[in-house]
Amino acid sequence: MKVVKFGGSSVASATQLQQVTSILEGDADRKIVVVSAPGKRGSDDEKVTDLLIKIGESFEVGKKDEKAYEQVIDRFREIVEELGLPEETLATIQGRIDEGIAMIERGASNGMDALKACGEDGTALMLSAYLQNRDHKASYVHPQEAGILLKDEPGGALVLEESFDKLYELRQKEGILVIPGFFGYTKEGKLITFSRGGSDITGSIVAAGVQADLYENFTDVDSVYCVNPAIVDNPKEMKYLTYREMRELSYAGFSVFHDEALIPAFKKRIPVCIKNTNNPEAPGTMIVADREDTDGDVVGIASDDGFITIYVSKYLMNREIGFGRRLLQILEDEGVSFEHAPSGIDDMSVILRETALPKEKEEIVIRRIKEELEVDMVEVERDMAMIMIVGEGMNQRVGVASKATQAFKNANVNLEMINQGSSEVSMMFGIHAEGIERAVRELYNVYFT
Amino acid sequence: MKVVKFGGSSVASATQLQQVTSILEGDADRKIVVVSAPGKRGSDDEKVTDLLIKIGESFEVGKKDEKAYEQVIDRFREIVEELGLPEETLATIQGRIDEGIAMIERGASNGMDALKACGEDGTALMLSAYLQNRDHKASYVHPQEAGILLKDEPGGALVLEESFDKLYELRQKEGILVIPGFFGYTKEGKLITFSRGGSDITGSIVAAGVQADLYENFTDVDSVYCVNPAIVDNPKEMKYLTYREMRELSYAGFSVFHDEALIPAFKKRIPVCIKNTNNPEAPGTMIVADREDTDGDVVGIASDDGFITIYVSKYLMNREIGFGRRLLQILEDEGVSFEHAPSGIDDMSVILRETALPKEKEEIVIRRIKEELEVDMVEVERDMAMIMIVGEGMNQRVGVASKATQAFKNANVNLEMINQGSSEVSMMFGIHAEGIERAVRELYNVYFT
Repeated sequence: MKVVKFGGSSVASATQLQQVTSILEGDADRKIVVVSAPGKRGSDDEKVTDLLIKIGESFEVGKKDEKAYEQVIDRFREIVEELGLPEETLATIQGRIDEGIAMIERGASNGMDALKACGEDGTALMLSAYLQNRDHKASYVHPQEAGILLKDEPGGALVLEESFDKLYELRQKEGILVIPGFFGYTKEGKLITFSRGGSDITGSIVAAGVQADLYENFTDVDSVYCVNPAIVDNPKEMKYLTYREMRELSYAGFSVFHDEALIPAFKKRIPVCIKNTNNPEAPGTMIVADREDTDGDVVGIASDDGFITIYVSKYLMNREIGFGRRLLQILEDEGVSFEHAPSGIDDMSVILRETALPKEKEEIVIRRIKEELEVDMVEVERDMAMIMIVGEGMNQRVGVASKATQAFKNANVNLEMINQGSSEVSMMFGIHAEGIERAVRELYNVYFT
Repeated sequence: MKVVKFGGSSVASATQLQQVTSILEGDADRKIVVVSAPGKRGSDDEKVTDLLIKIGESFEVGKKDEKAYEQVIDRFREIVEELGLPEETLATIQGRIDEGIAMIERGASNGMDALKACGEDGTALMLSAYLQNRDHKASYVHPQEAGILLKDEPGGALVLEESFDKLYELRQKEGILVIPGFFGYTKEGKLITFSRGGSDITGSIVAAGVQADLYENFTDVDSVYCVNPAIVDNPKEMKYLTYREMRELSYAGFSVFHDEALIPAFKKRIPVCIKNTNNPEAPGTMIVADREDTDGDVVGIASDDGFITIYVSKYLMNREIGFGRRLLQILEDEGVSFEHAPSGIDDMSVILRETALPKEKEEIVIRRIKEELEVDMVEVERDMAMIMIVGEGMNQRVGVASKATQAFKNANVNLEMINQGSSEVSMMFGIHAEGIERAVRELYNVYFT
């Protein structure tokens, strides 16, 4: 049994949903389908989820965005009509959108989540109806009915362990099951969403729950590339990747697969295949527990900007037991999550995402560091970027760091930070964001050409 | 006015004390002298401080080490006689040693400190008497009278700010003042010692207090070398170093100058000169606030072994706000100080000195990490070494890391950790201790030959 997930561009139009159907018809093992909300049909199109957020946010300024509302309904109507689906399919979708809006109007804490979830929900309703029209045994399965139980956490919802047993029961159901991605329910029955792009997570949870033989993740590229194709032309395709390699790459800027989506598949050892909806014959990229030839070669280069460094120095810091802990405590008190915290003898840096430290929090954090830790200096540096090179076995191979640092030198990019040794499969470099493209190109040159 | 400090080998015998006297006589600015305890006269000799510790520890097993006691008294007697000093000098020294022993016997909490301090105290008594014999106006100044006020801290005594004003009054005294190094007093009048080698700290505190023009630190080498001469033959001498460079080098294995001794001089901007007692004409190494040509060149390579790594991994660690803080809290609770704590996405390492984590604490710490943080894995790796390359401006120079990593590759040494970015003047590398000499030699080659 395979669990198949289709991303936003793969379900953006009636034509794309027909292509999805043909992929499902091409392999009888493709029993469970998880779908995203309709994405962009072209570069100047709007994603349905963005439109739903626009509607939700319009209530903050007190006035419903009627234009966005019409756009969403029109998107669904167009697909419903082109696929020749019954009118009630559209009515159901519109009813759920209206219910989401009503929840926002009456101030429900999860109103926005309910409204945002309507994109994926609508796709699932349409696809299951279309499959039935084509005489398949197919059914829409609501995430609550499927058993996707979540816990609400500051960084986004996390799946509860008990979901997996409940999901296993889906194996008993006949026909093709279509499940909307991106959301689930708390134990108290409250709808909550994952972080953006969370349909990948739903797919992974379902694949883990039903113990699928394979989790196929259909997107709009033939495979995962070893580097961002927007920076390097025609980069090498990756045939095999380990879970750990993919997770590190996703974290540091690889947008092809959601950062956290691998975890459930990883834990139950379900292989994942990234494939192209519009070229399903291409082999794609397999993500597995172990691959051959893990001899320390670099397999991928990820890069991401939008980081901040807080640099703190104080004489005799290394004599103060608890200094590092107290610094991190201040961040925790203020709800600020950090990425790395390298320390020297009399200094310590904290690296975090810009989104984690809005201006008003920055002021509080910096003041508390000055006053409570009595530091000699605290400085904030913005516009930092992180570049990560990834490969199993890398930490055991002499000379990997040497190649990397040579590449930065070739690119004339100064290394503000090197973090190596905490992870066994990656090495991370901090630079000023302006150098990111030069550095990535040189790294590609030294490792792949 | 210059403050001059003489180390253990410089005061090991009557001959050496005569050499010290001639150095003092050679420059009328050398007004204040800080001395260590008599050190080794040859490679199979014992240091007086080691003998005093032996005596102190013998009481733990209930029996005074009479042999060590005789050895100490004989050492002092020999010097007193050779210098032709009055018998009462030896009687005073012996009286203070006996008082230290008596304090240990009656269970005084600082008995061991009082006994250990007798080495430096004896040298100061002898040197001041000898200077008087040679018709100099000279006096012994007790650290309590001088105003060296300390605070007792777990890692060793720290000087109190008010010491500096009191020490400034020494400028009013006439003649040469001889102060024993290594110890001071709490506000309550309790004698306490610095960590081992702490006479350097006394000298630095005194130099800062009297606002000396120069703090001359006499030892047994012509200058500070850019690398450990036990690893590289005839290494380059350093003419100028900044305080920050010296502090980082001292921390990571440069034993020529005590790790913390620079701080007081640094804070008051007193230049420090490291010189050779037995070749006082050599210019030595100047340690200053700023040096010319701080263009990012590496000026020194330090190395030290005896480190441990604790490696911890847990899925979704980066989603747990407070994980790093809670890990450090466990170490703090158990009184374990750490050196570095680099973190990845789902993993974190803590690097500490072996001395900071005795076996019985290791078990508690590992158990608490497993139970309280519910980690997936925790591993302890021993026999690690740290190598540090140091140079002002290094963090602004493209290509420094590239040269260093090339050297490790040449040496066929795998880099277990790179910590760059927390300090502005250094870069630190973690390796397995077996590769330390190969790596240091190659680093010397790439930076200095």
